[in-house]
Amino acid sequence: MNRQTSSWIKNAVNTEIEMSSRIRLARNIKGVPFTHMLEDDEDLEALSGLVSKVLPDYGFTPMKELSVQDRAILVEKHLISPNFARHGTRVFINNDEDASVMLGEEDHLRIQALGVNIPLETLYEKANRIDDTLEARIEYAFDEQYGYLTACPTNIGTGMRASVMLHLPALTATNKIQRFHNNLTRFGFTLRGIYGEGSEPLGSVYQLSNQVTLGFEETVIINNLNELKNRLIEEERMAREKLKTIDTLDAVSRSLGILGHAYKLSLKEASMHLSNVKLGIDLSYIEVEGFNFQEWFQLIQPAFVKDRLNTETEYDSHGTAAESARAAIMRELLGGE
Amino acid sequence: MNRQTSSWIKNAVNTEIEMSSRIRLARNIKGVPFTHMLEDDEDLEALSGLVSKVLPDYGFTPMKELSVQDRAILVEKHLISPNFARHGTRVFINNDEDASVMLGEEDHLRIQALGVNIPLETLYEKANRIDDTLEARIEYAFDEQYGYLTACPTNIGTGMRASVMLHLPALTATNKIQRFHNNLTRFGFTLRGIYGEGSEPLGSVYQLSNQVTLGFEETVIINNLNELKNRLIEEERMAREKLKTIDTLDAVSRSLGILGHAYKLSLKEASMHLSNVKLGIDLSYIEVEGFNFQEWFQLIQPAFVKDRLNTETEYDSHGTAAESARAAIMRELLGGE
Repeated sequence: MNRQTSSWIKNAVNTEIEMSSRIRLARNIKGVPFTHMLEDDEDLEALSGLVSKVLPDYGFTPMKELSVQDRAILVEKHLISPNFARHGTRVFINNDEDASVMLGEEDHLRIQALGVNIPLETLYEKANRIDDTLEARIEYAFDEQYGYLTACPTNIGTGMRASVMLHLPALTATNKIQRFHNNLTRFGFTLRGIYGEGSEPLGSVYQLSNQVTLGFEETVIINNLNELKNRLIEEERMAREKLKTIDTLDAVSRSLGILGHAYKLSLKEASMHLSNVKLGIDLSYIEVEGFNFQEWFQLIQPAFVKDRLNTETEYDSHGTAAESARAAIMRELLGGE
Repeated sequence: MNRQTSSWIKNAVNTEIEMSSRIRLARNIKGVPFTHMLEDDEDLEALSGLVSKVLPDYGFTPMKELSVQDRAILVEKHLISPNFARHGTRVFINNDEDASVMLGEEDHLRIQALGVNIPLETLYEKANRIDDTLEARIEYAFDEQYGYLTACPTNIGTGMRASVMLHLPALTATNKIQRFHNNLTRFGFTLRGIYGEGSEPLGSVYQLSNQVTLGFEETVIINNLNELKNRLIEEERMAREKLKTIDTLDAVSRSLGILGHAYKLSLKEASMHLSNVKLGIDLSYIEVEGFNFQEWFQLIQPAFVKDRLNTETEYDSHGTAAESARAAIMRELLGGE
């Protein structure tokens, strides 16, 4: 298993506001009970054989071979879902780590494609190609009226979740984000934390995604999401103009100083400072050699931090050992000031 | 007027806990009303002529030639008192700026000697030599029973104030300082801020000085003060041992990062971080090239900061311009990180 960050995120150095994007398709096999009702593993085993043939270049990983830590790393890389880390059985991941197929998530199949600076349409085409190839060989649970049937009704229809990560520090600082969130909900979209449902939006990073999967074609959903995304980016830009003050210069530069010097950093604090530094760079207030917001943001997540500790002893991911390891990572990334 | 820090403080790089020391003698001329009762300037003028003869190497400065800003700089250099900056008329200062004679302070004469790494006894001898030379030529207001008579009864007797500046961050952090203060008061000593009576102890820097001037010989007062000083230093050292934790490492290193990166610093905040950095260096937690706690502490004081602004426009010493100038000074001292 690759314990480094994925190559696509390593190259994500020049993004501003818009970060990574992702398409996820949920599918189930006709006539087979949904995952949580499955009594034996035969159907997923058969499905797994089929996926291996269709995606020969993808690496196959039986989840039972992975430690809790390994699974957590895959979650932080967005290659599997938190739910799948706990209950999933098999995952296929391509070499570039920008596409994965989970078997036995809530749905039998979850196909996802992700990346930076790639339009959602392109990601959708990529996921769709995998989907079509599989659909040529197996029959999906599909209803003429509703579309693809899913374990949870919130995914029924297209079975598609499109999402874009956005860095919105100015809208967060000016408390405008809540109003946008409320408006988006009315259009069938949502803004939440980077690690999905229920996750806190750390470091002013939000995931904009569709909530409604039914009643619209995939392209329509993607178009609407792109429009909302552009609107949010525009609003964030305007809000940033008003933040061009010495107080912001002071705050972002202090954050850089703290990240370069702290010996203890909670995830929440590190995210906040990293977000400030990113804002400061975008505003041309500060310069940081080799800065990579998305990658560094991933490297301070609990599992990546634990990997650094490289210890088998009992570990509290919010404890002092984690906080000092996180601080050491940041000091190192910033060139060991 | 020398607008740089004094040479003695520039060389004060290797002090730990004990900072500078000072002796001040208050004297009045027999038969002449105390300063605040003086109706004309003749007696001080005559005294000034005498001091010029006795201290030919000292520079003479009529206070009326100095701007408010110039006077504030002299206060921050400890060469004149805040009271003298407002009401004083003439001051004699030696080249090294480690001795001065104020004419027309609360008392007709205030002779002071100061320095770093110099025993109070030596400073007393130095002030005493000046005093003796003058006393050979004029008659002081002196009472056989009480000793030297002074404008304020708190100085009567020896007319001597001996003081030592101490950096006591660990006793401050552990809230033990108040207890010491209460005990000291019982012995006729006091702990207060570095700029004298009523000044807040910024940056955990305290001035230990005698309150009682009557009933003891100068050498006894100095001996007692030295004993209390050594006790405080010992207690501070013990308190520091308990502060050797990752939290302290984190705090002192962050302070260094903040001082090197902030674009706005209040005097209170800058003092606090400077104190933390000094503690961190003393604990061998961090290294800072060319660090000089005493000098840098002086350079962030309001008048020194205002000098940097070099502006005649209206100036609020607590305003944004002052805070950003102070931050610029710190970033420069720290090598422009």
